[in-house]
Amino acid sequence: MRLLMLNGNTNAAMTDWMAARARAFYGDAVEVCADTAPRGVPYIASRRDCALAGGALVARLEARPADDHDGLLLACFGEPGLAAVREVSPVPVTGMLEASVLCALQLGARFSIVTPGRRWPRMIEDVLHELGASRRCLGITSVAIEDLALPAQRDAARRRAQAAVDEQAASLAPDVIIVGGAALAGLARELAAPTGLRLVDSLDAALAQSLALMRLAG
Amino acid sequence: MRLLMLNGNTNAAMTDWMAARARAFYGDAVEVCADTAPRGVPYIASRRDCALAGGALVARLEARPADDHDGLLLACFGEPGLAAVREVSPVPVTGMLEASVLCALQLGARFSIVTPGRRWPRMIEDVLHELGASRRCLGITSVAIEDLALPAQRDAARRRAQAAVDEQAASLAPDVIIVGGAALAGLARELAAPTGLRLVDSLDAALAQSLALMRLAG
Amino acid sequence: MRLLMLNGNTNAAMTDWMAARARAFYGDAVEVCADTAPRGVPYIASRRDCALAGGALVARLEARPADDHDGLLLACFGEPGLAAVREVSPVPVTGMLEASVLCALQLGARFSIVTPGRRWPRMIEDVLHELGASRRCLGITSVAIEDLALPAQRDAARRRAQAAVDEQAASLAPDVIIVGGAALAGLARELAAPTGLRLVDSLDAALAQSLALMRLAG
Amino acid sequence: MRLLMLNGNTNAAMTDWMAARARAFYGDAVEVCADTAPRGVPYIASRRDCALAGGALVARLEARPADDHDGLLLACFGEPGLAAVREVSPVPVTGMLEASVLCALQLGARFSIVTPGRRWPRMIEDVLHELGASRRCLGITSVAIEDLALPAQRDAARRRAQAAVDEQAASLAPDVIIVGGAALAGLARELAAPTGLRLVDSLDAALAQSLALMRLAG
Amino acid sequence: MRLLMLNGNTNAAMTDWMAARARAFYGDAVEVCADTAPRGVPYIASRRDCALAGGALVARLEARPADDHDGLLLACFGEPGLAAVREVSPVPVTGMLEASVLCALQLGARFSIVTPGRRWPRMIEDVLHELGASRRCLGITSVAIEDLALPAQRDAARRRAQAAVDEQAASLAPDVIIVGGAALAGLARELAAPTGLRLVDSLDAALAQSLALMRLAG
Amino acid sequence: MRLLMLNGNTNAAMTDWMAARARAFYGDAVEVCADTAPRGVPYIASRRDCALAGGALVARLEARPADDHDGLLLACFGEPGLAAVREVSPVPVTGMLEASVLCALQLGARFSIVTPGRRWPRMIEDVLHELGASRRCLGITSVAIEDLALPAQRDAARRRAQAAVDEQAASLAPDVIIVGGAALAGLARELAAPTGLRLVDSLDAALAQSLALMRLAG
Repeated sequence: MRLLMLNGNTNAAMTDWMAARARAFYGDAVEVCADTAPRGVPYIASRRDCALAGGALVARLEARPADDHDGLLLACFGEPGLAAVREVSPVPVTGMLEASVLCALQLGARFSIVTPGRRWPRMIEDVLHELGASRRCLGITSVAIEDLALPAQRDAARRRAQAAVDEQAASLAPDVIIVGGAALAGLARELAAPTGLRLVDSLDAALAQSLALMRLAG
Repeated sequence: MRLLMLNGNTNAAMTDWMAARARAFYGDAVEVCADTAPRGVPYIASRRDCALAGGALVARLEARPADDHDGLLLACFGEPGLAAVREVSPVPVTGMLEASVLCALQLGARFSIVTPGRRWPRMIEDVLHELGASRRCLGITSVAIEDLALPAQRDAARRRAQAAVDEQAASLAPDVIIVGGAALAGLARELAAPTGLRLVDSLDAALAQSLALMRLAG
Repeated sequence: MRLLMLNGNTNAAMTDWMAARARAFYGDAVEVCADTAPRGVPYIASRRDCALAGGALVARLEARPADDHDGLLLACFGEPGLAAVREVSPVPVTGMLEASVLCALQLGARFSIVTPGRRWPRMIEDVLHELGASRRCLGITSVAIEDLALPAQRDAARRRAQAAVDEQAASLAPDVIIVGGAALAGLARELAAPTGLRLVDSLDAALAQSLALMRLAG
Repeated sequence: MRLLMLNGNTNAAMTDWMAARARAFYGDAVEVCADTAPRGVPYIASRRDCALAGGALVARLEARPADDHDGLLLACFGEPGLAAVREVSPVPVTGMLEASVLCALQLGARFSIVTPGRRWPRMIEDVLHELGASRRCLGITSVAIEDLALPAQRDAARRRAQAAVDEQAASLAPDVIIVGGAALAGLARELAAPTGLRLVDSLDAALAQSLALMRLAG
Repeated sequence: MRLLMLNGNTNAAMTDWMAARARAFYGDAVEVCADTAPRGVPYIASRRDCALAGGALVARLEARPADDHDGLLLACFGEPGLAAVREVSPVPVTGMLEASVLCALQLGARFSIVTPGRRWPRMIEDVLHELGASRRCLGITSVAIEDLALPAQRDAARRRAQAAVDEQAASLAPDVIIVGGAALAGLARELAAPTGLRLVDSLDAALAQSLALMRLAG
Repeated sequence: MRLLMLNGNTNAAMTDWMAARARAFYGDAVEVCADTAPRGVPYIASRRDCALAGGALVARLEARPADDHDGLLLACFGEPGLAAVREVSPVPVTGMLEASVLCALQLGARFSIVTPGRRWPRMIEDVLHELGASRRCLGITSVAIEDLALPAQRDAARRRAQAAVDEQAASLAPDVIIVGGAALAGLARELAAPTGLRLVDSLDAALAQSLALMRLAG
C-alpha cells in the first residue's frame, strides 16, 4: 500500500519530520510519499490560514501527475481542505483532528484536547460540532508555542503540554487526551500519561486511521 | 457608506450584473465597489470549488490596496471563505446563504430553498447545521441549469425555479422560500409567489443584511 | 417607509425614549410611529410578565385601526408575542433579542450577553435554544438595576454594565457582546468596548434588522 | 387532594365536559375544581390564539381568590401559558401536550400525534424541540374538524381520527399514538387501537401526570 | 392495581426497604409485589454493573411465572435494562432516573442531580442525552458513600447529600434537585430544601410515575 | 499483535466463520483468538436480546483466564455491552456498528445502512444519536432474513441486500452504504456497488478499526 502525506503547512522541514514518523509507524506495511503545499502559510493558526491552505491543497493535488497511492493523509489539524479533497479523491482521505477524535470516541467515554495556538480551541469546537462529537469533549487547552524549529522551543512545548495534560487530568478527568497539531506531532510519546488515561498523538491517529481505511477499501 | 462586493466566482460579467443590482437596491444610500476573484472557478458548484474560491478570496482581499469601505459582501452562496474573511476584516462581512437564512428566520416559522446545482443541497445542509437553522428548513430543491450566460438559459432557469417554488409550496408549505445562488440573483423578482408565502432573493438578502450591519457598526 | 414600534412594557416614557432613538437612527429614511401596550407590566422581567405582555401586544395590534406601516418592531427583549404577532402580521416583524443575536452571528464567531434582571438569563437561554444559537453564546450576565427612571440609576446601570462587559471580555473572550433589554437601550454607545470586540445595542440591532426586512420585502 | 383545572379556551361547555371526565378519572381520590379563561378564543388554533390565551390564563389565576388546591391542570394543548404559570404557581402545573409526551416517552421508543387544526403540527414541533423530544416523534397528523359542538361533528371527528391513527400505524409504526387537543379529549377511548400500539388521550395523560405530581409534592 | 417492583441490585434488604416505602406511598391504592435480581451486583455503580444487571433483570422477568401486575418498576437508577424490559413488557415500565427527570421537567425550568457514586455523573449525562433533557440539567454532584447498610453511614450520607444540595442551590440555582439512586431512596424527605426549590426523591418519582402510567393504561 | 474476537451471539458456527474472515483480513499481521458468549441468544435481534448479550459478554470476559491480547472486537452489531466492556478492558475495544459508522464518516459526506431484522433500524437510530452521527445517516433499510445457516438463505440475503443497496443508491444518493450485522458479515464483497458509492462491510470495518486502535495504543 502507498500513502500520500500532504502537508498543508508550507514547511518542508515539518513535512520531512512527519514523513519520517510515518515511515517509523508503518515499517514495511505502507510506503509513504510526502508532499508540501507550495502556497499558504508556514504554520496554520487561524481560519484565514485554513482558507489559504485549503485552496492550496486542492490546487496541489490537481497539479500532481496521476499516481497510484491508496490513501491520502492531510497532515494538518483543523481540517483545511478535508471535505473538498474528500469530494474529489478516488482514495480514502484522513485528517489529523478528525482521526484523533474518531480514535478517542472508541478509546473512552470522554476526551479532551491539548493543542498549540490561541485561535485553535474555537476552530476545533466548530469541527467537533460538525462531527457531532461536542458532547464527548470535556475541554480544549491551548499551549503557547512560538518557534517550533528551535530545540529549546521543543523543550518548552513538552513542559507546557505536560502541564496542560496534568491539569486536564485533574480538573476534567477525561478517559483520553488528544495531543494535537502538526507542530506537536510525536510529542505525546514524550509525555507522561496520568494514571488510567490514554494520550493520543494526532499524527499517529491519522496514520492509524489511514491504515484502517486503506485496508478497508483495498 | 461604501460596500465592497467581492465575487468568489471568477466571472466578471456576473460581478457586473450583481453590482448593477446592488446599485439599484441601494440608490444613493450606499456606494458599491465590486471586485472579482482572480483565481478559482467561473461558477462555484462543489466543495472543491468552495475551497479554491475561499483561498482566492482571502488572497485577493489581502492584495488589495487599503481602502475605506464600511462593509464587505461575499457575493457567492455556500459560503466560501466567509469565516476566514470575517476573522480578518475590520468591517462587517455578509454571505448570501447566511443572510438569506437570517432574513427567513425573521419572516416566518419555516423556510425552504431553491438553488441551482446538484451538489448544493448537501453543502447547504451543512451550513444550516453550522448556523443552527436545520430544523427550520423544510427542504432544499436543486434546479438544473447549465449555461447561465445564454438568454434562453435564463428563461429555462425561470421556468424550472417557478416549478420548484410551486412544488415546495404545495408539498412543504413553508412561510418563506429562498431562491439562492449567485447564478439566480434577481430571479426571485421574476417569479410568482404562491399565496401567503414570501420569496427571498439571496443577493437582495445579502444587500439588506449588509445595510443593517453597516448601519449598526457605523 | 413607515415602521410601527410597539413597546410591550406599559411604560410610555420608555416608548418615547426608544422612539426618539429610532428617529435618530433612521433620519429621513424611515418614519417611526410608536405605541405602548395598554395592559401588562411596566417592565417585563419574568415568564409571567412575558405571557401578559404577549397577550396584550396581540390584542393591541388587532384593536388598532388599519394602517399602512411597512414593518413592525416589538420593542421588548425576550421575546413576548413575537411568534404570535409574526403569524398574523402582513409586514415583517422584528424582536430585540432575536435581531441582536442574528446581527451577532454575522459579526463574529462567538457572542455573549449583558442584560438587566435576575430571571432574564434562563429566559434568554430558552430563546437561543429555539433559535439554534446556543452554541455560539458563551455566557449571559445579569446586571442588577432597580429604578430605570432615575438619572442616578442610569449612572449605576452604566457602571455595572461596563463592569459586566469587561468581565466577559476577560473571562470569555467573545467577538461580540450584546447589551440587551429595553431598559438598557442606548447604553452600549456610552460604554467602552474592549479591544477587538464589538458591542451591540439591542434596540439598534432591531432598528437595523427592521430596515433590512423592510428593504427586502419592499 | 384538590386539582384546579383551568381551561384556556373560553368555552364553558368544553370546561364542563373535561371536568366531568376528570371526576370520572379520579373518583374519590381527587376533588376537581374547574374554571374557564374569561378572555381569549373559544378554541385555540394558532400562535396568536396561544398568546391571547397565555395572557388570559395568568391574569385569571392572579384574579382568583387564594384557594388551596394541590395541583393545577392547564386544560389546553400546545401549551399556552404553561411556563409562565409554572413560574408563579406554588403547586405543580401540568399541560396536556407535555404530559402526553412524557407519558409516551415511558410507554414506548417512538410516538406519533393526531390532533385537530391546520396550524397545530408546527406549533407542536416547536414544543417538542423545547422539550427535547423531537427525535422520538415520528409524525404529526392534523385532522380537519370544524364545529366541535355538534354531535354529527363528533362522529366525523371520530372517523377522521381513526383514519389518521390507522394511517400512522401502517406508515410510521409508532409504539404510542397521542390523540391530542382539548377538542378531542375522551376520543381515544372510542377508537380502535392498532395491534401492539397504545393510544394516549391527552386529557387523561394530563390527569395522570397531575396525580403523579400532586402525590410527589404532597 | 398491582405493581411489581424489581430491584436490579442483588440486595434483598434494599428491596425490602424500598417495598416498604412503596407501600407507605400508595396505601391501599396499589398492591406492591417486590422481587430482587438473582445475579449481578449488590450495588450498581458502573457501566459494567449496568450491563450485568440489565441482563439479569430481563432473565428474571422471563423466568417468573405469568402474573397479573399492572405496572413494573425497575428499582435502580441509571437505567439498567429499561429499554429492553419495556420492549417485552405488556404493562407500563418505569425507571427511577427517567421518572425523576420527567417529574423535574414539569416542576421547574432547570434541575440538578445529587447521587452517590463516582461513575454515576457521566452515566447519567448519557441518559439525559438519550432522553433529550441535557440542556435542562445544570449539574450532577456525586456524594461519596461507602457502606449503605450501616446506620452511621446513613447519617454520613444525609450530611453529604445536604451539603451537596446546599452547594447546588447556591451555585446553580436550579428549580428542582433530584436526590437519586436506590441507595439514597427516602433520603430526600430527611433533607432541608433550600428556599424556593423542590427536592425530588428518585424512588418516590418512580412510584408517582408508575401510578400515572397504570391509571392511564388501565 | 493479538486480537480477541468475542461473538455476543451464542452461535459458534457464526464465530468460526467470522474468525476465518478475520484471519483472511489480517494475514500474518494480527493473531486472532475467537470466543462465543455462552448465554444469551443465537442471533441478537431486539433490545431484549442486547440486554441479555451485554450481560453475558461482560460475564464471559471476566471469567476468562488473564491473557495478553492487544485488542478486543465485540462481534455483534448494535452494540451490546460495548460501553460496559470498554469501561473495564485494559485494551482497545471495537464494535461493529460504531466502527462502520466511524469509517463511513471518513469515506463520505453521507451514509446509509442496510441490515437484517425488523427491530434493528430504531436500535441503530439510537446508537447514531448516542454517537452524534444521526444527521450524516440518510436512511436505514431492514432486509428480511430468516435462517442464516442455510445456503439458500444466503442467496436470498444477497438478493435482498442488493435490492436494498440499489434502492438506497437511487433514492438517497449516499456516498457510503454500510452493510451491517454479524449475519451479513462478508456479504458486502459479493454485492455490486452502485457507481460512485462505497460499500462498507461491518465486520471488515471493525477489523480495520481494531487494527488502527491496536497500532495506536501499541
